[in-house]
Amino acid sequence: MSIEPFNKYTEVPEVVILRLPLYVRVLTKLDEDRETVISSYQLGQLLQMTPAQIRKDLSYFGRFGKQGRGYNVLFLLEELKRILGIDHGWKACLIGAGGLGRAILNYPGFSPEGFEIVSAFDVDEYKNGMLIGSVRVQSMKDLPIIISQHSIKIGIVAVPASQAQNVIDHLIKHGITGILNYAPIAPIVPKTVTIRNVDPVLSLQSMTFYMTERGK
Amino acid sequence: MSIEPFNKYTEVPEVVILRLPLYVRVLTKLDEDRETVISSYQLGQLLQMTPAQIRKDLSYFGRFGKQGRGYNVLFLLEELKRILGIDHGWKACLIGAGGLGRAILNYPGFSPEGFEIVSAFDVDEYKNGMLIGSVRVQSMKDLPIIISQHSIKIGIVAVPASQAQNVIDHLIKHGITGILNYAPIAPIVPKTVTIRNVDPVLSLQSMTFYMTERGK
Repeated sequence: MSIEPFNKYTEVPEVVILRLPLYVRVLTKLDEDRETVISSYQLGQLLQMTPAQIRKDLSYFGRFGKQGRGYNVLFLLEELKRILGIDHGWKACLIGAGGLGRAILNYPGFSPEGFEIVSAFDVDEYKNGMLIGSVRVQSMKDLPIIISQHSIKIGIVAVPASQAQNVIDHLIKHGITGILNYAPIAPIVPKTVTIRNVDPVLSLQSMTFYMTERGK
Repeated sequence: MSIEPFNKYTEVPEVVILRLPLYVRVLTKLDEDRETVISSYQLGQLLQMTPAQIRKDLSYFGRFGKQGRGYNVLFLLEELKRILGIDHGWKACLIGAGGLGRAILNYPGFSPEGFEIVSAFDVDEYKNGMLIGSVRVQSMKDLPIIISQHSIKIGIVAVPASQAQNVIDHLIKHGITGILNYAPIAPIVPKTVTIRNVDPVLSLQSMTFYMTERGK
């Protein structure tokens, strides 16, 4: 793996980063369909964005296409995956083995995309030792050693809102740098940590457009 | 409320619709900060999009700004809310009162945005009558009458993957036209129904960018 200068892409707007996984999905599909070259116009059609916006988004990361030649699908796909850090797998742990936590552990979407939940923790000692899917629930006391042993960098938080901030502070203290938070609060994290809150309201707010269109 | 011609906006690309709730968030904040006018350039800065893309997105819905004068914040906000159908409240029901369902019922983010979960259902008769927050779990047998009585249009699905398609078919049969699906499957729905699958992988895939940037 190449060594990147620290903060190479820090000037890239966050919304551009949020769009990149969608580029990866579209390019993966194109590659599966054995397409080798795609223009910013065609990519724009697939992503419903202007060709200028496509070129602007990609220009943050260097030169991917030759003027008038379009983008090499596989090259662009692999570069974007590398830039996003999804050209390799990530290990995650789950905190909170309640109903939500169990649903997350059983979610089959993480593993094919390279996100492996290798351990689960719960404050309730009664749940310790319980097997959910292929993951055994462990005591919170074991969290520091497990995180360190498995080089876990991602923590998925599925505890009640009242406990979420404490749990997140604890994870960060023990080396977690990425948090996927399902608890319905907006936790505070230092700048060295990235957090994503799962937000169903945005989904609902675009859904109602179509429901309104059809005349309710 | 004005009566819109059927299918007025059907030519609008879905990704544009997906962006509109973000416009609403930014404009709500601007309105709270007592900003009255905003240019496509400034809006672009806040949403990290090109002014041309902003103008293109909004042009699907008519003329919001005068050349060189910018957009009226409150007018644009109210129009976008009307277009999205979030200028009024929506009633939703929840199916599946397990751990995930309970977490959804206790999620405090829906109600302030006008989405009210007015009832919950579970196949497990043992759970019937149980009170979760302010919502009482009811028998699936009562679903048709409750949906009809309360004019519920949105169904939130939090059942195991194996039951999700059946539950969704049942909801649609009884008049639900919008589905927020938490089950880890890609359900099939007719074109008259809108579905959103809660997808945590996209969140993770943009998170790893920042984790990679910081040198893991």
